[in-house]
Amino acid sequence: APQRTQVEGLQPQVEPDPMVRPLDVRLTPPSLEDPMADDRNLWGTLKRAHGVAPGTIDLAVQQTFTSRLRDLDWKASVVLRESEIVALDAPSTRWIGLAVDIGTTKIAVYLVDLETGEIAASSGLMNPQISYGEDVVSRIYTAGQSAENAAKLQSLVVDALNASVAALCAEIGSDPAHVADAVIVGNTVIHHLFLGLSVHQLGVIPYVPAVRAEVDVKARDLGLKMAPGGYVHMLPNIAGYVGADHVAMLLATETDEREGVTLAIDIGTNTEICLNCRGTMKSVSCASGPAFEGAHIRFGMRAARGAIERVRMSDGRLEIQTIGGSAPVGICGSGLLDAIAQMRQNGVIDPSGRMLDHALVRRLDERREFVLVERPGEDDITISQKDVRELQAAKTAIRLGIQALIEDAGIAEADIDRVIIAGAFGTFIDVQSAIGIGMLPPLPLERFQQVGNAAGTGARLALISRDKRRAALEIAAKDGYIELATIPDFNEKFAAASSLAW
Amino acid sequence: APQRTQVEGLQPQVEPDPMVRPLDVRLTPPSLEDPMADDRNLWGTLKRAHGVAPGTIDLAVQQTFTSRLRDLDWKASVVLRESEIVALDAPSTRWIGLAVDIGTTKIAVYLVDLETGEIAASSGLMNPQISYGEDVVSRIYTAGQSAENAAKLQSLVVDALNASVAALCAEIGSDPAHVADAVIVGNTVIHHLFLGLSVHQLGVIPYVPAVRAEVDVKARDLGLKMAPGGYVHMLPNIAGYVGADHVAMLLATETDEREGVTLAIDIGTNTEICLNCRGTMKSVSCASGPAFEGAHIRFGMRAARGAIERVRMSDGRLEIQTIGGSAPVGICGSGLLDAIAQMRQNGVIDPSGRMLDHALVRRLDERREFVLVERPGEDDITISQKDVRELQAAKTAIRLGIQALIEDAGIAEADIDRVIIAGAFGTFIDVQSAIGIGMLPPLPLERFQQVGNAAGTGARLALISRDKRRAALEIAAKDGYIELATIPDFNEKFAAASSLAW
Repeated sequence: APQRTQVEGLQPQVEPDPMVRPLDVRLTPPSLEDPMADDRNLWGTLKRAHGVAPGTIDLAVQQTFTSRLRDLDWKASVVLRESEIVALDAPSTRWIGLAVDIGTTKIAVYLVDLETGEIAASSGLMNPQISYGEDVVSRIYTAGQSAENAAKLQSLVVDALNASVAALCAEIGSDPAHVADAVIVGNTVIHHLFLGLSVHQLGVIPYVPAVRAEVDVKARDLGLKMAPGGYVHMLPNIAGYVGADHVAMLLATETDEREGVTLAIDIGTNTEICLNCRGTMKSVSCASGPAFEGAHIRFGMRAARGAIERVRMSDGRLEIQTIGGSAPVGICGSGLLDAIAQMRQNGVIDPSGRMLDHALVRRLDERREFVLVERPGEDDITISQKDVRELQAAKTAIRLGIQALIEDAGIAEADIDRVIIAGAFGTFIDVQSAIGIGMLPPLPLERFQQVGNAAGTGARLALISRDKRRAALEIAAKDGYIELATIPDFNEKFAAASSLAW
Repeated sequence: APQRTQVEGLQPQVEPDPMVRPLDVRLTPPSLEDPMADDRNLWGTLKRAHGVAPGTIDLAVQQTFTSRLRDLDWKASVVLRESEIVALDAPSTRWIGLAVDIGTTKIAVYLVDLETGEIAASSGLMNPQISYGEDVVSRIYTAGQSAENAAKLQSLVVDALNASVAALCAEIGSDPAHVADAVIVGNTVIHHLFLGLSVHQLGVIPYVPAVRAEVDVKARDLGLKMAPGGYVHMLPNIAGYVGADHVAMLLATETDEREGVTLAIDIGTNTEICLNCRGTMKSVSCASGPAFEGAHIRFGMRAARGAIERVRMSDGRLEIQTIGGSAPVGICGSGLLDAIAQMRQNGVIDPSGRMLDHALVRRLDERREFVLVERPGEDDITISQKDVRELQAAKTAIRLGIQALIEDAGIAEADIDRVIIAGAFGTFIDVQSAIGIGMLPPLPLERFQQVGNAAGTGARLALISRDKRRAALEIAAKDGYIELATIPDFNEKFAAASSLAW
């Protein structure tokens, strides 16, 4: 049976060179003969000790450094961000960074040692906005109903981050006040909700972002608890449904730097796909829906204990594997994909997706269902015709997106040198199954690479490396966007992409 | 009788060139074919229409401009500050500026038309911090007692400014949201309290400011209601008791640009004096006390209706003039100065300040008092020996400060080409009287110039002219500070300066 392997993101090598740098200083106390103002005293010391030219001091630091310097007997560690002092505390304070990938469903939080670039602590939590809608469209709707709703969606995430950062800091003996810099990514809707930007226009044609550019904002302006003058950097968006998380994924996978033809896919409720065809990058966004998350599937569930994650069928017999090896309670996205690929391969469904008669297919009135697990005394775990259609819709959207990029670039699928599959779901799918149902193009398996949460890795890279942060801007600037709704012969192409055959 | 003339500040000619500039734009609405993000759309338009390179957009503007642009049918007036968009509203919005001089006692508020540089509306109000202490020393004490106190002192001024700006805006048919830029000055203690900086160290040797440099801070970080992304610029301080208001005064009086030898004095509870001796500028601060405000004087009062403001004595007869010409109710600073000068001139007091026997001097036990106004049925208005000592202490501090500067520069008093007297009190004093009691050096009267609230004028200049704002930085950078407590032979000099003779 195939192994469920945890892929802990990519680990690209990068020399730590963060936006913020800590400098230890020892000031000369002022006297009547030289009654130096504290700011001038500090800048003079920074100049002498570290060759730093005078700049500005964040207001919150101005408000506290006077008493802090005296408490610390005029010795301190100062955090400089470009020419601004954003924090000041005891000498040799261990300043840390925060990288966050806010997903529609889950939030990945990383505390990073800014000196080594290593992850000091990390945590995954549910996005509490879930209670206001499972997908981004329902959150746009919720936010649009009232300013209070929009503020609530924002504060839910901010509060969750504050709690998570506080807990992670406690874990490593640090303090949120020592978080000196942060990089946060998310899709465009999540990004906008987090910054308090308008999302209404993301829900109506032509689906434009309020802000595409990168954003640097004081953490305090968002209610995020960090070092007094600390900034949050939000990577740039590309389009209404190609957000900063996609940019982070492209950064982490180095899609832009690859030679030849590279396809990078982040599969989720919304799937973003980028094709780097010999240096020209374009992206599309596909509404793949929540089937991969187990939503709208009769026995669907998230990837948790007891979820069927692998299905094999040989000689008319089923072999299933569950997460944690426990008794099956439902089926998660990768299991569903496997099951339908096996059904297709064994003639249970035809290329159009219609379920046929088969030993494992049960007929109730006009409806057919495929029996996955018989559970005496309980409802059997089955896959319905409707479940097949749900997954088919998802895979159609993805294949259509790939086709649009291929066609735009004027190449054939076989020209693709590598396919990078990112995202939690993409990490666990069986690529052969995905090819089998025509979700992914039929390429040799060695051309596929599954890389886990690349968006989170991209956020970390932009946190610890100024070069990488600049590279993210370049990626966003050069990545073209194709709006699927505008491609020629959309309907015909949609029909072709929907076939459950490769 | 001398005329009480209202001096409405200096009116230096300056070409308006403010930090913020409004630009009208007309955007192309996005379409599916060109689903431009709003920020990119805006910057593209600014580039095409005005040659402006892309910069940043303040977060508060980001949060509102999306819906505002649509409400305005894609036409708007955008306010640019350097490369940042700080406000956006309807085309041809009349953007205004705010200049404020926060005095220890009074606050002068000006709304300024940023296009013409003219004052659009202005108002004078009491500094509500008065209820926490008349002078800065008592406010340092109050702020030091608790963080709540310090926050209260800050919010009192912020609330007063918000109310004043709202009222002035209503007067001219504007709105605080259209106040696009602000310059605020005050002495170092007032400056620090306003920004929420520590003031404790201003109350103890060696009296150092937390911050000497100019400060640019988002108005929202102070709770000041302005355009969403608007900044407050605080002019730089020079020393613990030589603040941004002194810099503003020097800017308005162009003290730094004058040839020869110029003495500029801002008389108040604390008196700051600057000597520009042939290009070398130095300043001192003198604790002249509240006698000029009428405090600690038996019949003292502020310059209000019924206050004796002028006193003349000839052939043993007194001639007095009151503010508003009404019946005398007390004596204000300029009246007290006049009275004591006349007493000295007519032999009522000797050069040491001792009151002698005289037809107008009444003796009660050992105490003498000079009868200014007899009021049948009411207490007569008198000047006591203690009142003389209060004014003498004030004038001694000022003369000592002038002497210290003169000596430091190695010149004689007679070398002073001009004396500029700024501040509300300085505007109304009789210079001859001030010379008469040895407060000001004995120079020909034509060398004196009384200029009113020059600090407020300086704030306005820095608001409407980037050149002037830069000039203020240069003034603060090149103005040396002399700490009176460190001058040699302090006690001898103090004794000499205390003489009520010139």
